[in-house]
Amino acid sequence: MRQRYKPWADDFLEENSHLIIPDPSKHKNKWRRLFGNDNPIHIEVGTGKGQFLIGMAGQYPNVNFIGVEFVKSIIVTAAEKVILSEQKNILLLNEDAADLLEIFSENELTTIYLNFSDPWPKNRHEKRRLTYQSFLEKYQVILNPSGEVIFKTDNRGLFEYSLVSFSKYGMELNEINLDLHDHDDPTNVMTEYEEKFSAKGQPIYRCRARFLNKK
Amino acid sequence: MRQRYKPWADDFLEENSHLIIPDPSKHKNKWRRLFGNDNPIHIEVGTGKGQFLIGMAGQYPNVNFIGVEFVKSIIVTAAEKVILSEQKNILLLNEDAADLLEIFSENELTTIYLNFSDPWPKNRHEKRRLTYQSFLEKYQVILNPSGEVIFKTDNRGLFEYSLVSFSKYGMELNEINLDLHDHDDPTNVMTEYEEKFSAKGQPIYRCRARFLNKK
Repeated sequence: MRQRYKPWADDFLEENSHLIIPDPSKHKNKWRRLFGNDNPIHIEVGTGKGQFLIGMAGQYPNVNFIGVEFVKSIIVTAAEKVILSEQKNILLLNEDAADLLEIFSENELTTIYLNFSDPWPKNRHEKRRLTYQSFLEKYQVILNPSGEVIFKTDNRGLFEYSLVSFSKYGMELNEINLDLHDHDDPTNVMTEYEEKFSAKGQPIYRCRARFLNKK
Repeated sequence: MRQRYKPWADDFLEENSHLIIPDPSKHKNKWRRLFGNDNPIHIEVGTGKGQFLIGMAGQYPNVNFIGVEFVKSIIVTAAEKVILSEQKNILLLNEDAADLLEIFSENELTTIYLNFSDPWPKNRHEKRRLTYQSFLEKYQVILNPSGEVIFKTDNRGLFEYSLVSFSKYGMELNEINLDLHDHDDPTNVMTEYEEKFSAKGQPIYRCRARFLNKK
């Protein structure tokens, strides 16, 4: 994802530290306190420009949403949109998915969304895929026992890989949809990518999976 | 699958009892003896007109193939083709998949192929699908510990259902392909249906799955 360099990004982050939380490990196990309620917490890993998160936050006002995005210039765009949306149940983290265990405590989350994650198609980049075993290990810790990973992509290779990866890790597949837009689903909130790719007629794949043996 | 009534089918079966084996429970645990060798045994459940089985038998001469087909008039067509093919590593059974445990003993099989099985799309017919739990219980018994179920279909609903069914039963997904004909695979033997549907550009789905905790 190419974005032009935004030299004002650091200033923006500092000015909006109520929304893009600096030093998030300070809030580990205390995220509900920051939201000011006891609602369940759902996170999106790789939240991009935030359209999915904002749509979900509007649809589910009794859920706390946290978007994790590593690219600073992109999370600034997401933050601008969150501010315009006036949704109060959203926080953003400019963090690396590899650090999730420093940010969230055991069982703290109810849902982890992975949307149109980078497919890293080369075999030697397998470890960077967000559905690689080392990431599943982290999701398993921070999801609560009934929690789910909900994964959407238009990338066939990544979806095939991920179903096998989930299965080999011992996760249970709760639902699989190989053409999400075949029927209208008013509850499906689309990401920016999803709008673009489904408009071209490409199938969008989705699955829900859970960990059977929660550590 | 509609077939015209073939009144001579019973005569044909009787005349070809070396190929379409009557009373197969007599051979339980002794199928290799009937083939006259110690090669692994692969079965196709719902073998239809036999194109897949004959192609596989040609490609893998050191495997014994058994086709199970419930519809008498269709297995006659398959038998005629097997005779023409002169393949010696094929036997046919005019039996119901529900009776597999009477026919094969524990660990007797290496692979079970399910090709373009009837999708039984109505919820109330779920129990008839060949990937329903009650069938998986039988496959688990008769497959050896490293054995696999290899499932191909063009039916999206059945494939989605089956992946979830395999997963919930505790099977491990070894490989998933969501568009088998995207690349040429010279080892893929096509069924009659597969030729027809892939020619229309419909994706063909395939997965390989195995039982983790063999009884």
